[in-house]
Amino acid sequence: MSLKGNVLIGQSGGPTCVINSSLYGIIDEAKKYDFIGDIYGTIHGIEGVLNKKIINLRSETDETLRGLTRTPGAALGGCRYKVQQSDMDAIFEVFDALDIRYFFYIGGNDSMDTADKLNTAALRLGYDLRVIGVPKTVDNDLPETHHCPGFGSAAKYVATSVREAGIHNASMYTSEPITILQTVGRNTGWLPGASALAKSREDEAPHLIYFPEKRYNIYQFTIDVENVYRRLGGAFIVVGEGLKDENGEYWHAEHGLVATDAFGHPTLGGVSEFLKDLIEKHLKVKTRTIKLDICQQAAMHFASQRDVNDAIAVGRDAVKTAILGLSGVMVTLLEEEGETGWAELDEVANVERQVPTEWLNSEGTFVTDEFVDYVRPLIRGEVKVQIEDGLPSYVRLKKSFIEF
Amino acid sequence: MSLKGNVLIGQSGGPTCVINSSLYGIIDEAKKYDFIGDIYGTIHGIEGVLNKKIINLRSETDETLRGLTRTPGAALGGCRYKVQQSDMDAIFEVFDALDIRYFFYIGGNDSMDTADKLNTAALRLGYDLRVIGVPKTVDNDLPETHHCPGFGSAAKYVATSVREAGIHNASMYTSEPITILQTVGRNTGWLPGASALAKSREDEAPHLIYFPEKRYNIYQFTIDVENVYRRLGGAFIVVGEGLKDENGEYWHAEHGLVATDAFGHPTLGGVSEFLKDLIEKHLKVKTRTIKLDICQQAAMHFASQRDVNDAIAVGRDAVKTAILGLSGVMVTLLEEEGETGWAELDEVANVERQVPTEWLNSEGTFVTDEFVDYVRPLIRGEVKVQIEDGLPSYVRLKKSFIEF
Repeated sequence: MSLKGNVLIGQSGGPTCVINSSLYGIIDEAKKYDFIGDIYGTIHGIEGVLNKKIINLRSETDETLRGLTRTPGAALGGCRYKVQQSDMDAIFEVFDALDIRYFFYIGGNDSMDTADKLNTAALRLGYDLRVIGVPKTVDNDLPETHHCPGFGSAAKYVATSVREAGIHNASMYTSEPITILQTVGRNTGWLPGASALAKSREDEAPHLIYFPEKRYNIYQFTIDVENVYRRLGGAFIVVGEGLKDENGEYWHAEHGLVATDAFGHPTLGGVSEFLKDLIEKHLKVKTRTIKLDICQQAAMHFASQRDVNDAIAVGRDAVKTAILGLSGVMVTLLEEEGETGWAELDEVANVERQVPTEWLNSEGTFVTDEFVDYVRPLIRGEVKVQIEDGLPSYVRLKKSFIEF
Repeated sequence: MSLKGNVLIGQSGGPTCVINSSLYGIIDEAKKYDFIGDIYGTIHGIEGVLNKKIINLRSETDETLRGLTRTPGAALGGCRYKVQQSDMDAIFEVFDALDIRYFFYIGGNDSMDTADKLNTAALRLGYDLRVIGVPKTVDNDLPETHHCPGFGSAAKYVATSVREAGIHNASMYTSEPITILQTVGRNTGWLPGASALAKSREDEAPHLIYFPEKRYNIYQFTIDVENVYRRLGGAFIVVGEGLKDENGEYWHAEHGLVATDAFGHPTLGGVSEFLKDLIEKHLKVKTRTIKLDICQQAAMHFASQRDVNDAIAVGRDAVKTAILGLSGVMVTLLEEEGETGWAELDEVANVERQVPTEWLNSEGTFVTDEFVDYVRPLIRGEVKVQIEDGLPSYVRLKKSFIEF
């Protein structure tokens, strides 16, 4: 297999604060090797290959590329397209036309599945291609990696928001005693769990955390909330988006609030409003809900510098891994900042790593010190965003589309 | 009227990022005058007077007091208690017992009503008291003042969140094209309007803003959203919490989502979920909702330094105004940073200042340049919060309760 050829990079799934840092890492590393020719980006992941929306990343200025490490969103555009076997001919026609020999796909579980399918198809077709997955997800649910780029920044933002809103909430206990903050994270509780970092004293928020990994009795939930409320005069509760009852059914399913996305995953949004109704009916006290939603993935203004550094590292090491001759692997992060390894894509694709049960208390309503010790290093350091006129200033790719 | 006597300070209504900066300003200024004796704080506003929960603020360290200017929440506790004439005897018994001659009440419209009632009662009872209102509200809806302390920080956070979430949203147009962000602000559109500062190019978020000041046809809303979606491939919409139809009814009233608080104001929470359903039914595309709720009032980690400076200034000038012999007034802010005036409490109490119609476009779906020019100076400067272990570190009063 020759080292000579062109590079194609895609971003897939929902963005994180640092998905562009991985993009920067790949581009900056790829530029170091003179056997690498063009460096292309596909717009909206694999959709851009199918639609022939491909840009030349060598046309972007160094200033823009460095600015990517301080810019939220997915500069190339993300996607949630589930690649089909019937798409493979069209995809490899494009790869062949552009002499793509390196394909870097930055994404989460579903995107690793796409990358794995492309790697398998290349082998079957006898097409020389090195496919490297680059991890990304605020959910922190990819297996085989110590942690996922994107999680540290989201954890920092969630913990900061819970600390601030918790102080606010406690100062309003006599009139608005209860607040529920709902995080993202699908079927894993890494993000709700990270809110525990906000708490440095027993009476501080969060008081109760609910995890998608556990099964809860909904009446026990109201009793738990009432107990905190009676003891402290109020309560701050953090909930994951996919909470289930003893039968494994989504708590809020009866409200018709669960639909499914293109991958068949439930789209979860309504659990906090459901719980608000429940508490207000049961305790007869005003309950607020906070749903930060995509702000958790986009809050660059208070992102973790450690997270940015890790995201650049997995980008750079994806290129190095490909040059070493590997394919069909995802770069992984080790415990120490910037240290990487790799795992087979087919062992990563579609697997969700949940919070270990031993990192939750016996009731499943808070995390242990081990959990906190795991997350703490990942939220360290503040990214210095550029401020213009009081607001963060972000970059955009100029996007030189190629004709072919 | 003698200048000699003790000071009582209360915080009322919901907190803002800078309500503690005004508390600091009052305390620090009051300490300069040797005819001022004790400086007390009442816990949870006027409720603390009725419950005899009063602390000695001279026992707090200088470090804690300075830390208040970088700490969210209401350090003394806020309240939403509507004072009754029947409460006055109990209130003035406490004032008399503690020789309170200066009463500073930091709050919004409802709190100014409380302060006004106390001032009137003092006059009627022949009790020597100087009552000064100190403005505070993220809603920016107090009349007679150029702007309100608290608004600048909330505006900065909302505009930052819309810029970041807007970039994120645009990178997901092919799968999750529409996002609705709901602000607080009750019946005024200052905060949704402030999101316009996020936009520097025509295709950037926000694309549509909906104001409580206007009446909208709900079918026109869906057409407006569809037009943006067809043109750009997605849309970012910012909505106030109290949106009304042509008949002046809340859009989401039919969903039973409107309750009322102790002041009879509707508690507004559900409009974004209502609009999400509407768009998903009409356009058949995935729509996300963001409800930052009290994070808008609490996001000290990215607060406006201009706002902090103004909040300290109204605190200091409240003391100076009282010493000049005035009572029954609220300190106001002028256009220039830190410059203040005053207005009669009875002209401020219970009056909501709405966004002028001429500062909205003819459709009522965006603001004019005049609006942007008004808000821009108020969001300038970033507060330097103290960071410990990756998270902002905030202070707490030690709260030495007094026996009487």
